[in-house]
Amino acid sequence: MIKIGIYGYGNLGRGVEAAIKKNKDMELVAVFTRRDPKDLVINTKTAGVYNVKDVLNFKDKIDVMIICGGSRTDLPVQTPNLAKNFNVIDSFDTHAHVSEHFEHVDLEAKASNHTAVISVGWDPGMFSINRCMMESILPDGSSYTFWGKGVSQGHSDAIRRIPGVKDARQYTVPVQSALEKVRNGENPYLTTREKHTRLCYVVVEDGADKARIENDIKTMPDYFVDYDTTVNFISQEELDKNHKGLPHGGFVIRSGETSEGVKHVIEYSLKLDSNPEFTGSVLVAFARGCYKKFMNKDYGCKTVFDFAPSEISPISVQDLLKHTL
Amino acid sequence: MIKIGIYGYGNLGRGVEAAIKKNKDMELVAVFTRRDPKDLVINTKTAGVYNVKDVLNFKDKIDVMIICGGSRTDLPVQTPNLAKNFNVIDSFDTHAHVSEHFEHVDLEAKASNHTAVISVGWDPGMFSINRCMMESILPDGSSYTFWGKGVSQGHSDAIRRIPGVKDARQYTVPVQSALEKVRNGENPYLTTREKHTRLCYVVVEDGADKARIENDIKTMPDYFVDYDTTVNFISQEELDKNHKGLPHGGFVIRSGETSEGVKHVIEYSLKLDSNPEFTGSVLVAFARGCYKKFMNKDYGCKTVFDFAPSEISPISVQDLLKHTL
Repeated sequence: MIKIGIYGYGNLGRGVEAAIKKNKDMELVAVFTRRDPKDLVINTKTAGVYNVKDVLNFKDKIDVMIICGGSRTDLPVQTPNLAKNFNVIDSFDTHAHVSEHFEHVDLEAKASNHTAVISVGWDPGMFSINRCMMESILPDGSSYTFWGKGVSQGHSDAIRRIPGVKDARQYTVPVQSALEKVRNGENPYLTTREKHTRLCYVVVEDGADKARIENDIKTMPDYFVDYDTTVNFISQEELDKNHKGLPHGGFVIRSGETSEGVKHVIEYSLKLDSNPEFTGSVLVAFARGCYKKFMNKDYGCKTVFDFAPSEISPISVQDLLKHTL
Repeated sequence: MIKIGIYGYGNLGRGVEAAIKKNKDMELVAVFTRRDPKDLVINTKTAGVYNVKDVLNFKDKIDVMIICGGSRTDLPVQTPNLAKNFNVIDSFDTHAHVSEHFEHVDLEAKASNHTAVISVGWDPGMFSINRCMMESILPDGSSYTFWGKGVSQGHSDAIRRIPGVKDARQYTVPVQSALEKVRNGENPYLTTREKHTRLCYVVVEDGADKARIENDIKTMPDYFVDYDTTVNFISQEELDKNHKGLPHGGFVIRSGETSEGVKHVIEYSLKLDSNPEFTGSVLVAFARGCYKKFMNKDYGCKTVFDFAPSEISPISVQDLLKHTL
C-alpha cells in the first residue's frame, strides 16, 4: 500500500480523497489543515486530521504528500518546503512561473533525496502530455487547445469583485465552428475571440444597476474584453440550483501532414462532471509514479513529461502486454 | 543526427521514410530489401539501397533499425535476429503472440547490449498508451476501442481469396449510435455486431455469380459472420479511382466515476489519411526514444508503456516546461 497524505482540504483535497478510495494500492493516512482539526470532518474513517504545524510528525509515515493548495501563494512556498521531508506532488498551474517553481522544488528534493512532481492535473497535465506526444509524432502541423464547456473559478471570482454583484458563475465555452475547422484539418488561424466565448450567470444586490454591471464585466481587461461575453442575471436560488457544480473539460487537437496532401488529425478530449475530482484522480495516479521513482532512487523534481505509462499504472508490465497493449 | 535504417520497403517502409524527412534530428542512412537493390528506387537521395544479406556491413553505421516486415512470418524472425547487432524497433501487432515475441527479442537485445522496442504504431501503440493512462486515472470505469472508418488490409485480402473475385477493398466502420452512447458515459454492453459494420467494394470476374460471392463474404467465419456486412459490386476503374488509399483511424474512450454519480469521459481519436504514413511517424518518434534509452545503457526489449513523453520528443525538458506544459 502506498501511504498518502493530503495537505490542504478544499475542493481539490476532497477530490484527491475520493480518488484514493478508487485505488486499491493506495491508503489515505492523514489530512493536514490550517484550520482547527476538530472542526474538520473528512470522508475517510481510517485517516486522521491534523494541523499543518504537526506535519513533521509524519515524516516517515507518509510515502507521498499530495499538496492541494493554490498556485498563487500556497504552492510556491509549500511544495519546496515539504520536499525537504516528503515526496511531494502538486498541481501548480501558473504557466509563467513553472520554471522558477521547478528550480526551487528540484533544489530541495535533490538535497534531501526525495522525489517531487509538479504541475499535475489535466491542463497542465494530461493536456501537456498529449501536446508533447502529438507534436513528436506529427512535427509538421499545428496544435490547438480548447477549454470547456466548464466553470472558470478565476473568472467567476473576478465578476464577484464588481460592486453590486452578490454571486456569479462563469462558463468558458469553445466555439463549435472553430472546433470543427480544426477537426477537419483546415489549420485555421484563430484569434482569442474566435476560439472561446464566455457565459456569465450573475446575482445582483437589490437595486443594483444591471446595465453598469454588464458593461463592467464585458470591458474587464484580461478577463473578458477580448471575448464575446453573454451576461445573464438570475436569482440566487437559480444559481444555487443549476450552477453549483464544477464541470469542465476541453480538447487538444493536432493536425499535420506526413507528405504532400496526406493529413492526419489527433484529438484528445475530456468531459468532466467535476474538475477537482478529475484533477485529484490524475494527482493520485502520478503519486504512484512519484513513489516508484523514489523507490528507484530517482530523486529531484519531475513533471508529467518524465513518466512512462507503466509508472503511473498499478498493473504489471507483463499484464499490460497481455491485456492493454 | 540519429542514423536510421529501414528494413523492408513496402507501404510501411515508405511511410517511415516520409516521416524521417519531417524530423530534423533524423537521417535515413540505408534501406534494406529482399529484392535486387538495383530494382528499387527510394525517395531519399542521400540514402543507399542494399540487399538484406549485406545488413551486417552497417553494424556500426546505424543507430536504430526500423523493421517494416509483416507480423505473421517476418517480424518473429527478423526482430530477434537483428537485435543481435542493432537497436531495433518494430510494429508487431499479433496480440496473441506479443509476450512470446517480447521474450525472444528481450533475450537477444540483453545478450548483445542493445535496446529494442516492439509493437509500436497506433494500435498497438498510441491506443495502448491511452488505454493504460485512462485506466490508471479512472480505475472505476469501462474502456472502449472503435476502429475506422478505415481500410482493413486483412479483410480485403480475405475477400480477394474468394473464387470469382478480382479485387476488393473492405472498410471497417464504427456504429455511430454505439459511439454516442459510450461518449455520453452510458457504459453500454456492446456485442461485436453492435460496435462495427463492414463495408465491402468488390470487383468480380466476367460472368461470376455475385449472389454466391456476396453470401461467401457475409458468412465467412472470423472475418464477417459476426458483423452486419454490406457488399457493393463495382468496376475495377471505380475501385482504382475511389478506393486506392489506406485511410484509417479510430477511438479509445473511457468513462468512469470518481464518486457516486460523478462521471468523466476521456476520449482519444485518430483520423488518418494514410495508415502506413502515420504508423511510420509513430515508429520514428519511438526510434528517438529507443536511441535515448540505448545511450543511457537501458538495454533489452521495451514497449510503448516504457517511454516517457520527453523521451520521444526532440525538445529539451526545459523547453517543454516553457512552451508545452
